[in-house]
This record gives sequence, C-alpha cells and structure tokens, in this order.
Amino acid sequence: MARKRKTHRRYSSKAGLPPGTLVLIGNHREEPISIELIDYSGDVHNEQEVVDVSVLKDSLQTSTVSWVNIHGIHNTDAIDAIGKVYNIHNLVLEDILNTDHRPKVEPFEDYVFFTMRMMWYNDENELEKEQISIVFGKPYVLCFQERRGDIFDPIRERIRTDSGLIRRKGTDYLVYRLIDSVVDNYFIITERIEERIEDLEEAITADSDGDHMMVIQHMKREIITLKRALLPLREAVSGLEKGVTELVDPSNAKYFRDVYDHLIQIADNLETNREVLSGLMDMHVANMSNRMNQVMKVLTVIASLFIPLTFIAGIYGMNFDNMPELHWEHGYFYAWGLMIVVFISMLIYFKQKRWF
Amino acid sequence: MARKRKTHRRYSSKAGLPPGTLVLIGNHREEPISIELIDYSGDVHNEQEVVDVSVLKDSLQTSTVSWVNIHGIHNTDAIDAIGKVYNIHNLVLEDILNTDHRPKVEPFEDYVFFTMRMMWYNDENELEKEQISIVFGKPYVLCFQERRGDIFDPIRERIRTDSGLIRRKGTDYLVYRLIDSVVDNYFIITERIEERIEDLEEAITADSDGDHMMVIQHMKREIITLKRALLPLREAVSGLEKGVTELVDPSNAKYFRDVYDHLIQIADNLETNREVLSGLMDMHVANMSNRMNQVMKVLTVIASLFIPLTFIAGIYGMNFDNMPELHWEHGYFYAWGLMIVVFISMLIYFKQKRWF
Amino acid sequence: MARKRKTHRRYSSKAGLPPGTLVLIGNHREEPISIELIDYSGDVHNEQEVVDVSVLKDSLQTSTVSWVNIHGIHNTDAIDAIGKVYNIHNLVLEDILNTDHRPKVEPFEDYVFFTMRMMWYNDENELEKEQISIVFGKPYVLCFQERRGDIFDPIRERIRTDSGLIRRKGTDYLVYRLIDSVVDNYFIITERIEERIEDLEEAITADSDGDHMMVIQHMKREIITLKRALLPLREAVSGLEKGVTELVDPSNAKYFRDVYDHLIQIADNLETNREVLSGLMDMHVANMSNRMNQVMKVLTVIASLFIPLTFIAGIYGMNFDNMPELHWEHGYFYAWGLMIVVFISMLIYFKQKRWF
Amino acid sequence: MARKRKTHRRYSSKAGLPPGTLVLIGNHREEPISIELIDYSGDVHNEQEVVDVSVLKDSLQTSTVSWVNIHGIHNTDAIDAIGKVYNIHNLVLEDILNTDHRPKVEPFEDYVFFTMRMMWYNDENELEKEQISIVFGKPYVLCFQERRGDIFDPIRERIRTDSGLIRRKGTDYLVYRLIDSVVDNYFIITERIEERIEDLEEAITADSDGDHMMVIQHMKREIITLKRALLPLREAVSGLEKGVTELVDPSNAKYFRDVYDHLIQIADNLETNREVLSGLMDMHVANMSNRMNQVMKVLTVIASLFIPLTFIAGIYGMNFDNMPELHWEHGYFYAWGLMIVVFISMLIYFKQKRWF
Amino acid sequence: MARKRKTHRRYSSKAGLPPGTLVLIGNHREEPISIELIDYSGDVHNEQEVVDVSVLKDSLQTSTVSWVNIHGIHNTDAIDAIGKVYNIHNLVLEDILNTDHRPKVEPFEDYVFFTMRMMWYNDENELEKEQISIVFGKPYVLCFQERRGDIFDPIRERIRTDSGLIRRKGTDYLVYRLIDSVVDNYFIITERIEERIEDLEEAITADSDGDHMMVIQHMKREIITLKRALLPLREAVSGLEKGVTELVDPSNAKYFRDVYDHLIQIADNLETNREVLSGLMDMHVANMSNRMNQVMKVLTVIASLFIPLTFIAGIYGMNFDNMPELHWEHGYFYAWGLMIVVFISMLIYFKQKRWF
Repeated sequence: MARKRKTHRRYSSKAGLPPGTLVLIGNHREEPISIELIDYSGDVHNEQEVVDVSVLKDSLQTSTVSWVNIHGIHNTDAIDAIGKVYNIHNLVLEDILNTDHRPKVEPFEDYVFFTMRMMWYNDENELEKEQISIVFGKPYVLCFQERRGDIFDPIRERIRTDSGLIRRKGTDYLVYRLIDSVVDNYFIITERIEERIEDLEEAITADSDGDHMMVIQHMKREIITLKRALLPLREAVSGLEKGVTELVDPSNAKYFRDVYDHLIQIADNLETNREVLSGLMDMHVANMSNRMNQVMKVLTVIASLFIPLTFIAGIYGMNFDNMPELHWEHGYFYAWGLMIVVFISMLIYFKQKRWF
Repeated sequence: MARKRKTHRRYSSKAGLPPGTLVLIGNHREEPISIELIDYSGDVHNEQEVVDVSVLKDSLQTSTVSWVNIHGIHNTDAIDAIGKVYNIHNLVLEDILNTDHRPKVEPFEDYVFFTMRMMWYNDENELEKEQISIVFGKPYVLCFQERRGDIFDPIRERIRTDSGLIRRKGTDYLVYRLIDSVVDNYFIITERIEERIEDLEEAITADSDGDHMMVIQHMKREIITLKRALLPLREAVSGLEKGVTELVDPSNAKYFRDVYDHLIQIADNLETNREVLSGLMDMHVANMSNRMNQVMKVLTVIASLFIPLTFIAGIYGMNFDNMPELHWEHGYFYAWGLMIVVFISMLIYFKQKRWF
Repeated sequence: MARKRKTHRRYSSKAGLPPGTLVLIGNHREEPISIELIDYSGDVHNEQEVVDVSVLKDSLQTSTVSWVNIHGIHNTDAIDAIGKVYNIHNLVLEDILNTDHRPKVEPFEDYVFFTMRMMWYNDENELEKEQISIVFGKPYVLCFQERRGDIFDPIRERIRTDSGLIRRKGTDYLVYRLIDSVVDNYFIITERIEERIEDLEEAITADSDGDHMMVIQHMKREIITLKRALLPLREAVSGLEKGVTELVDPSNAKYFRDVYDHLIQIADNLETNREVLSGLMDMHVANMSNRMNQVMKVLTVIASLFIPLTFIAGIYGMNFDNMPELHWEHGYFYAWGLMIVVFISMLIYFKQKRWF
Repeated sequence: MARKRKTHRRYSSKAGLPPGTLVLIGNHREEPISIELIDYSGDVHNEQEVVDVSVLKDSLQTSTVSWVNIHGIHNTDAIDAIGKVYNIHNLVLEDILNTDHRPKVEPFEDYVFFTMRMMWYNDENELEKEQISIVFGKPYVLCFQERRGDIFDPIRERIRTDSGLIRRKGTDYLVYRLIDSVVDNYFIITERIEERIEDLEEAITADSDGDHMMVIQHMKREIITLKRALLPLREAVSGLEKGVTELVDPSNAKYFRDVYDHLIQIADNLETNREVLSGLMDMHVANMSNRMNQVMKVLTVIASLFIPLTFIAGIYGMNFDNMPELHWEHGYFYAWGLMIVVFISMLIYFKQKRWF
Repeated sequence: MARKRKTHRRYSSKAGLPPGTLVLIGNHREEPISIELIDYSGDVHNEQEVVDVSVLKDSLQTSTVSWVNIHGIHNTDAIDAIGKVYNIHNLVLEDILNTDHRPKVEPFEDYVFFTMRMMWYNDENELEKEQISIVFGKPYVLCFQERRGDIFDPIRERIRTDSGLIRRKGTDYLVYRLIDSVVDNYFIITERIEERIEDLEEAITADSDGDHMMVIQHMKREIITLKRALLPLREAVSGLEKGVTELVDPSNAKYFRDVYDHLIQIADNLETNREVLSGLMDMHVANMSNRMNQVMKVLTVIASLFIPLTFIAGIYGMNFDNMPELHWEHGYFYAWGLMIVVFISMLIYFKQKRWF
C-alpha cells in the first residue's frame, strides 16, 4: 500500500521557466490526442473528428453551440494551437496542462475557465484522478480531458437523440451537464467508502489482530485527497451560481445551485466518514490493548498460581538433617493437601476479583 | 450493532441519468401512497382523501388554505402529477424523491421548497429517520412524507376543533406548525440521549470491563447523524425567519425565530453530550488501564515475594557434601525463620511504597 | 458524583402541544409565588407585596420606574395574568416558564425580553442554576426568578437609601444593575474553580493514585455548563449595548459594554481553566503510568536478579551420581561466591542502566 | 512549581457593590504612590514630581504635551482625584484599578482609554505581570503603572535630549512609544521561551526520566497566559490604527500598524512554540514508553532464558529411584551441554527477532 | 537534530531603542554588500554594478524600469543611503533589516513595500531561509536579499535577451516575476517533503524500532515553519491582486492571481502532508506498541509454559520419606509423560486463543 514514487513530470521541472511556458505537469501518455467537435442547436446536430484546428475557427462563426472535446493534453503544440483559435490567455493554457491544479473558476472578458478533478476507483480499488478543464465562451465549450473516457457518453446520446432540454439550452446548460456528470462520480465514491467502512467495522469487531491501522490510515488519506478536490470545486460551482460571469444565464443558476447542493452533501458524507473512521481507530486501539490485557492477565495469573506452589515444593526439597515433616508417614500427602488448598484459595480470590 | 448494509436505491443508480429524471433514492415501500387534502379558513373546514389529482387543481381556486399531505413518495408518477398541478420545477421533485437530501430552504418565484429530516428512536432503540418535504405557495401547503404517521395529528385536531390561532392564520403559520412538530421530536431524542449517557456513566463507574467503548462509539455516531440533520435545518429555518420569501409574513417571523431558538438549544445540548461522551471515553480508558494496573501490580508483587524465598529453598536443596547449615540441629527452622523475615520485610516495604 | 436523574418536567411533556400553551419546564416548587412591586423615581419610593395584579396595571399609569419582582414561576395562571397586564406575547411567557432556556435578548415593539442563567455553588459544592428572565418596557421592569433570593438586595438597598445613580436613571439602568449582579456571581464561580484547580494540582503532584480522573471530568463538565450559559449571555448583552432596542439609551450603552467586558474576561478565564485542566489530565495520566512503570521495573528487577541465582541453586540440587563440584571441600562456599558475584554484577549493570 | 494561592483582593470582594465604586483588585503595595509630570513641546521641557493634583489642572491649560506617570494605583483617593481633574468616567477609573483587566481600547468623547499588560521574567524565572493603563486626550497622556519601573526611561531620555521625533510629535506618538516599549518586552519573553524550549529539547533527548512533563505543562501554561494578554492587545492596537479615535492622526497610523505587525509576529512565535511544545510532549511520552519497553524487554528476556534452564535442573533434582540419566558417567556434563545448547539457541532466536 | 542556539542578533538587542533606529536582526555576513542596477525598457538595456548611490538617483530620472538588486543588508549605512535616494520611510528600512519579519505588503503614498521569505533545503538537508524585501515605485524596483544568489538569473537572462513579455511590461510585471521565482521554490520544497514522507512511510512499515518519532517531529516542525512563511505571503500577494496599490495595473492582476493560486495549492499540499504525518505518527505508535505486545506475549507464554512444569519437577524433588511415586519402576517416565501432556495441552490452548 506504499505510495508509488510518482514518475510524471513535476513542478520542479518548471521552476525558473518564464510564466506562460507550456509544460505538461503530469503523466505523458502514448496515445495521440484527439479532438471531437459536436455542433448543435435546436435543429442542427453535427459530430466530427477534428484534424485541422481551422475547422474549429469556422465553427465559431455559426450560431450553434460548439462542444469541443480534447482527449489528451500531452501534445502542447496542439493545445497551443487551440488556445490561439479561441484567443485564450497563456496562463490559462498553462493551468490546463497542469494536471495537479486545484479546482477553480476564473472569469475572463469573453470566456470562463473552469477546472476540476474527476475521481474514481480503478479495478485495483485505488483512487484515480483525472483533471478536466472547461473553457466556455459565447458559442463554444472546450473540454480538456487527460484521456478518452466514457463519462460524457450519456450527454452525447441526449444531444444526438434530442431528448431532454439540452438542445434547447445554451452553453451554460452544457457546462452544467458536464460538471454534474463529474460530481455524480463522487457520490459513487462516497458510497464505496461507506461500504468499505462497514466492512472494516465488522472486521475490527471480529478480529483485533488484523492490520486495521494501515487500512484506516489509507482510507483517511483517501478522504483527505477527496476533500482537497471537493472543497475548491464547491467554491468554483458556487461562483458560477452566484454570477461571476454573465455567460451563465440567471435562469439557469438553479442548475448550478443543484450541483452545489450535491457537493455540500458529498462533503458532509466525507466528513461523517472521517469522524466514523476516527471512532473506528479509537475502537481498534482499545480492542488491541484490551486483548493484550486479556492475554497478559491470564498468563500472569498462571504464573502467580504456581510460584507459591513451587516454593512449597522447594521447601521440602531441602536437605536439612532435621526436617520433621519429611518423616511423617503422610507428610507427602499433607504437602499435596497444602498445595491444593493454596491453589484453590488463590483461584477463588482471583476469580472473585474477576481477574480472569 | 454493525450497521446493516443499506438495501435501498442509492445515488449510484442515478449517475449518468439526465437531471430532472425522477428516481426514488431511498426505501421502496409496499403500501400504496395516499393523498389527504385539508381545506380550511376561519369558517371553512374540509377533509378528504384525494384519489384524482384534479381535485387538487380545484382547491387551488378557492381562497382557503389547502393542506395536502402526501404519504409515501415511492410512486414517482403520482409525484410527477402533483408537481404538474402546482407547477413545481423538476429539480424540486427530484429533491423530494431523494430521502437522503440535506435539509434546506429554496425560494422559487411563487413557491418555497423546504425539506427536513424527522428522527426518532424506534422500539429497538435505533435511530430512524424520515425525509419530510414541504412545498408551499400562496394558498397551499404540500407536505411529502415517506409514510403515514401520527406526528401531525395534533395539528389536524386543532384545525378540526378550531382551537388556537391556526384557523385564523395563513399557510406560513401552518408551515411553522409542521416544522415545529418535527423539531419537538429532536427534544425527545436529546432527552433520551441524556438518559442513556447517565446510564452509561453509572455503568462505567461501576464496571470497567464492559464493552463501553462500542456503546460510546455508537452514541457518538448517532450524535454526528443528528448534527448533520440539525445544522442545515437551523440554517433553513433561519432563512424563513430572515425573509428569503415573501410568503412568510414578517409578523409571523417570530414563530420561526422561536423554532430557530429551539434548534440552537438542541444543537447546544448535542454538543454538550458529545463533549460529555468524550469525557466518558477518557474515563473509561483510564479506568481500564487503572484496573489492568491493579491486577498486574498485585500479581507481580506475589511473584516478587516468592521468588527470593524459592531461591533460599533452592540453596538448601543443593547436594554439596559439605554444607554445615544442613547439619545444624535447628537449621531447618532457622531457614524458615530467614524466609519469614525476608517475606515480612518485603511485604512491609511494598506496603510502604503503596504498591498494593 | 453520578448525576441525579432529573425529575422535573421536560420538553417531551410539551411535544405535540400547540405553541403558546404555558407549561412549566423545570422543578415545580411548593412555596407560593410572590410578587413584589418597587416604584421609584428621583423623589418617589414605594415598595409593596402585590396580591392582586390590577395593582400592576395602576402602576403602569405613573411615570415612575416600576420594578416588579416575581419570585416563583410555577403558577402558570399568575404568569398568564401578569402577561396580560403588560401585553406580553405568549411565546415570551412560554420562554419565561422554560427554566432550561438559552440566554437571549429579543426586542419586541414596546418591550424587550431578556433571559439569563444565574449560577452558584451550593453548600454541597455543586453547581446550581436558576433562570432569571427580565421583561422591560418604558416604565416597568419585570424580573422573573424561580425562587426568592437575596441577590438583588444591594439594589433594593440603594433604591431605598437613594445612593448612587439608580434613582436618577431609568429602566435601562435598573436592567443593567440586575444583569450586572448576576454576572458578578460568575466571577465568584471562576475564582472558586481556580482555587479547586490549584488544590487539584497539588493533589495530583502529591499522589498519583487518587481518583483525580473523575474530579477532572467533573470540573470539565462544570466548565462546559458554564460556557453554555455564558456565551449566549455575552451575545445578548452585546445586543443591548449595540442598540437592538431603543429602550436602552445610547448614553447608557457604556454600562452594558462594561458588563460585556466582564463576560469576555470570565469566558477567557474559563477557557484558560479548561486548558489547564487538560494539562492536568495529561499530567495525571503521565503520573499514573510513570508510577506504574516504577513499580513494574523494581519488581521485574527483583525477579530478574533471583532467577539466575535460583538456576544455579537448581544445578547443584541435581542428583547426578557424578558431579565433581559437590564433593569439593569448599564447593558450597564457592557456589555462594558465584551467586554473590552474579548478583552484584547484575545489580551494577541494572544500576548503571538506571533501571531502578 | 505549584501556583501560590493568590492573596490579593479579588473580584468576589466587589460583588454586590454598585458599579463605579473604586476598589483595588490586585496587590496592595506599601510604597506611596507617586505622580510624575513631564511637560514638553518642540522647545519646552519640564519635569516635576506632583504632590498636589491642582498642578495637573494648570498643565491642562498649556499647549504642551503633558505626560503624567502615576506609579502605584493602590491609593484609590488619589486615583479618584486625578479622574476628577481630567473628567474621566468612573467606570474607567474602576478598570484602571483592576489589575486583572483584559487589554482593550475604549474611545470616549474627548479621551481614549487603553489598558494593556506588561510581562517579564523575574529573577526566579517566573512570569510576572503588571497592568499599564493609558488615558490620553488632546494635550495629556496619563499612564498608570502598578509600581515605579524603568521601562519608560529611554523615552524620558529622548524627551530630555530632544533626540528623535518625539518632541516634534503630539500625544498619539507618545502613546505609540509607550505601547511599543511594552510590546518590545514580549519579544524578549518569546526569545527566552525559545531558549528554554531548546534546552528542554536537549534534556528530553538526553534523558527520558526527568520530570519533563511538569516543565512542559508549566511552559504551556505560560504561553496560554501570554496569549490571553496578547490577543486582546492586538485588537486594541488595531483599533488605534484603524481610527477608532480622532486623537490618533491618520499620518501616525503607520506607527500603530508597526506595533500591530510586531504583535502578530509575537503571536505567531507563541503559536509555533505551543506546537513545538506539543511535539516535545509527544516525543517525551514516546521516549518514556520506549525506555520502559527497553527495560521490560531485556528483563523479560533474562527471565525467559533462565526459566527453561531451571526446569531442566529441576528435572534432574527429582528423586525417582529409577532415573537412568543420573547414573550415566557423564550425565552431569550432558545436562550442562543441554542447558548451554538451549540457552544459546534461545539467545540466537531472540537476537534474530531483535528483542534486545 | 537539536536546533543550534541561534547566534545572530535578536530582538532583545533592540528593545529600548527608538523606532526607526536601523539595527540588523539576523546574521551579520562578512562579504561586502553589492548593488546591481538593471535599467531596461522596450529598447534599452543596461546593467551595472553600483558603487556610488548617486547613480541610482540619476536612473530615477529616466523613463526606463530600474531594477536595483541589493545583495547583503548588513551594512546599515548603505541601506540608509539607498532609503534616502528613494525617500523610503525609516520604519520600512527597519523592516528590511529584520530578517525575521513576517511576509506582508504595505502600500505607501508613492511606493509599495513587500517582504517575503525564500526557503530551500541546503546540502545537509536542512531548511534554510532568506528574507527578500521588495520596494517598488513608479520607475524602480528595489530588491533586498541577504546575500548574492542565482534565483533571479533566469529573469536577468530574459531581460538581456528580450524574450517573453518582460521588456514590454512595467515594474509590476517585474515584481510578479520576482515573487513567482520565490514561490516556485516552495513547490520544490513540498515535492521534497513528499518524497521524504514516502521514504518515512516505507521505513515505518519496515521497521518499528527506528527513531521515527524524532524524524516525524522534525518534519512537522518544518511544515509549521513553512506555513508560517506561506500564509502571510498568500495574504500579501492577494493584496497586490486585489488592488491595494495603483502601482499594479488591473490588467496585470491576473498574474498575481496566478501566484496566489500557486500559494493556495502549496498550502493545501503542506496541510495534506501535515495530516499524513499525523497519520504516520499514529501508525508508528501503534506499530511500536504492537511489536512490544508481540514480544511480551511470546516471552510471557514461554514463562507460563515452563512454570507449571518446573512445579511438577519440584514436587518430585521433595525429600519426604514416603513418596510412593518415587519408587514406581517407571515413575520418572510417568513424570515426563505428565509434563509433556501439560506442555502440549497448554500449547494447544494458547495457540487456539491465538496468543502467539
């Protein structure tokens, strides 16, 4: 469960470079980056794989909503080219390339930058994360992902089949749907955590010897990681709701309010789980010391019972010439009697004191 | 005391669905849902079981207060139909169907959505909860409960018998009475908790061996659960008092202020109980280790007393040819004397040091 | 030190009743309730025992300050009658009857409701409390106490003898004097607590065996109780100073500021005491485990010293036919020599390692 | 290190007295109180010992800055007389006489009241405190100290020799210099504390047996005391900077800002020291238990090594008629061999497991 | 790892001196102080080593940005002379000379004072710090460092080669670049800390005996030190972004916002690391006590196994005349049998209870 030494590029590789230098902070992936353009409005719907970014420039001229999905951000040139099309400030592009960036919303004159962290449990039950950055302006929504995933498939489907409100709403509604999809994932995580806590609780109650400490610490750390992603995301969503930008229509603020409510609830759940984990740790420690006490007590009682008896046996093992008891006919049996009496009275005494 | 793996539908079942899709999050109950309509004003009073929701539409035309009690929310179609009658936004209906929702108040243009959590101890002394959602507009109050209960019977009775102010007041007063009934339940819970803490305290003082740790953890978790329900409820009630909506008449704000005061006091009590529980845990741990120390000390003293004596006996059990003491006439008795002297001096020494 | 199961009426007895129903929450006392009326102005001074509440109505007509002291609140009819005279809202009367109410100030149109908790140590050194509620309007100050006490005697005396400012000031100054008297009591309590902490500290330093844990927990709980009473009182007094009501003349705000300062200082003292208590607990726990360690170490050293010696004696207690040492002339004394050497070298070794 | 039961007058002696009654809370000192008047402006400089307070009245007429130093506050009549000269409210005089008062600033119509706590380590390394109260109006600065001290000597010197800005500035600058002198003392204290913590750390690392717990607790308590004095002082200074009074010229606000910065830094240092102390306590507790474990392990290993050997010796000390080994020629040496083998294998096993 | 008693000048050396007296608080260095002047604008670029401060005065007349780097601050006369050139208030100069100063921003009429702390790990893996103070006005940026370093070399390079924006931007951009360089260093530190925590975690998991406690405490203290430097720096940068001064052009605020984001992320990382360290400490303590328990249990089991056996051997070592078993032909072997049976049954019992 030791954390792997991270091998991806890190901040230190950037120190000294001038700001605005585009450097990927995160894992460099092998797969080529791909750009998907979905143009839609009430009656239009168009999907294409973009090869030449000039296509994007053209789609800016239309009045449709242009949803541009960029899968993979390790090709800094492509990112730079896209940035030029939409006239995005270099500092924003830099933030997009930083997969460790804190979730935040930042309004610019004619677009808004929003970045968040998607998290999920992978097949080995480890928490994984992916940075998802959104830049949206009047007629476009750019969505930068680290790799191709299926999380937004339901949204694509809705657009294709024109079900729900999405084709009748603007970019803000699409942004809401994107954020909402990511937030929904956190619900799944908290449920998973709750299940694991229940399992852990049973394990602790059943067996005080296991290496529960490490599991507790590991889960605590996961919760810390989640909270570090959630709390700033909550702030950022609240910013969209409270109107940091005019690109979100006030009549759609309630959708962001809904996401905000979800985020509060998830944070509440995490906090509860954290407190429950602390309680479990207290219980585990108490269990362990309890069990140790049980062992020590029984063993010490055994020692204490036999030590006086051994002393009595020692007495009659002495070799003095003149030891009258040794010559009594039933001396040996009297000695046994004495030892049994001592043994039983001590046993009763210990029992009475509930020492074992 | 292990928590049952929850079997009801959970958030994860919703992830991916578009917002506004009505999905019940919570236990699906067997009993059919029922709708009760109470129409009243100063001189009118009318109660009926509603079968067809169009009845509700009619009652909207009258100037009386229409109190609509919906028992059971597992029939999403019925909820949807009711929502259409009162023109309620889909996101609100979704929240009503989510029995894990955080208490909150949310004002809309011509109605207010208020949701809270009722809690009580069931017969097996376990904390149960039920989500209660209220939607109120000018002439109506919708109250969604998970199942039929008797908590609002006193209010029904007052309306029937026209006692108190209720028939002379509007929807806001009815909403206040509904919330107040739920809040009163929390007082009963905190009193129950106080009694249990008193019992626990006596048990801890009397017996340091019991499994008090688990009980303390269990109660701590209950208090966490209660606080998670209470604190947002307090905020929500404060919202009603502070005028988030014009549907609450300023002259009635004092009633919500009163509920708010109660909620502060309940939160205070819970906080006190939490601190007392922490104190009890400290005491229990100290007790346990104290008792262990007592046991270990007495047992170790026994061992320490007899080990030197056994050594003396061992000496005179040696088989050297030339051991003068063995041939003294009273050697054996001298040996006894020596052992008794050693025993008593050690006893006095240990006693003096107050080691047992 | 176990808390007595409270026998007085509790909230649960009220759940379900409509708001405004007057129910005493607290101890029902046997003594009849009495009402004392003190009318005064610069040159008028009048004291009387009120039997008929209509007297109160008359005194409302005069321009003098009417100080009405109600001793005992268990007669709900009398309270109701008084409420009618001064036109006090039923929710306020309810709060007056609730002896567990949180201190607060609540301004109404033509009067202000202020409730606080007086606390003191009784003769058995237990913390007692009494709810004191004040309702004051233009020409009157009602003061509701649970029972007759002497805490306000100095104020009565000042009014009688016309010393100090009181006869030249209005109702706000009287209210200030009443609150100030109650707050002064808290100073006495914190001094008492400080003395007890000093005693406790000496006891812990002197004797690590006593049941200090329980005393610490008990004092911690008292401090929690005090803080629960103090903090809202501070807020309430601050409200009066900051002008929640026009019934307090701005020129008299400085008096309430003074009380507020006192309350901050008392809260500071309590907080300091709480931290000192935590420190004492740490010290007590360390002491206990230290002492236990001392005992265990000495005893284990004794065992460790004698076990090798007993082994040597055991060797020469063996009955092999051919054991040359046994037949040496001074074998026995050599054995003694060996044992003494072993004993002393171990002693030196242990001493050097400072193990006892 | 037990705290001396304080013998000075306490709050309880005031309870019941009307506000504005001047009562000294603190130590009554024997030395007579003395009043020093320093009048200065750009070209005037005058120092005198004041015997008759009417001199102060005269100095009010001049346009010079009048710095009045009152050493000793135990003569309530003198304080009262001074209060009359400068028309100071009785509540302020009361606060001046209260040597336990919390630092604060309180602006009045034509003067400002400022009180703070000077602290230092006395020769016995104990923290001492003295209340210093300042009242300043247009042309005067009153400075009340509990006793004559030399802390303000550098300021006196600067006025005498007309060095620095002081003769060219007004009362606000003098007040700043007075406060700054007191705050500088806190720097010395924190440095002293840091040194003691360094010493303590070395002591803890070197010796796990000392009574470090008590020292840590003692220092923690000192830090609490310091923080209780510092935090409100910071607020008060901030008040002067932020302009609670027009008696501080905005152009001089930067001086108070400077003091404020110092106070923040001192508070930071104290906080750091508190955390370091907590770390040291953890380390000390770990050390203690570590050492105890070391002792117990070695001793238990000794016991465990010899117990099986003693058992073997016991076997061959049995007196059965038919014990073949006893009659083997080298039986005794075989027994020794067996014992040595057992001893060494156990030693290796224990060593391998790193049990000692 | 004991902290060296600091030998540099300290606050105490200043107490009593009037404000504005320039005294170096920190290490006095031997190397002479040097002043470097870099003048630049879009087309001008000039670097020189300044010997006479009058050069600085001249450069004030030009419209270029004058970046003045002062390496070394131990020559108070030089600092004073520079201060006079730029008309800097004495309190600011004092702050520059105080190498323990808390990071802050302070706007003056025509310049802004900004001070921060640069930190890094030196070759011995110890955290070092250097105070860096910036004073910037319309056409100049003064940067005071404790000694000559290479941290700003990339900026110098950029100016020289006119790459990036820097030659086209004003003083505010230069200030941003200076701060950004220092903040980048913190990223490197947190990465270093993370690596060390990973190492520590592995060490703790592998070996419960090491002196991890001290390492944990040491790292905790480093994190405290870092946070004390970071949090006020964050505030200060936020001040520049939020417009405390008009010297920062609103269009450049986004750069400071970027630095601010970095600082929040660093603080987040530190906080996470602090929590992880706490978790590691819990784990280490649990490990230690776990291991101790293992040892004690095995050893106690050994003792408990042999004590009854030794007792049996003792029995048959007694010398009674009449002990029938001794004379049985196979008595000795029966005794062995008995002992083996006892031994094995205890072994099974202990094993079953999982006591070792």
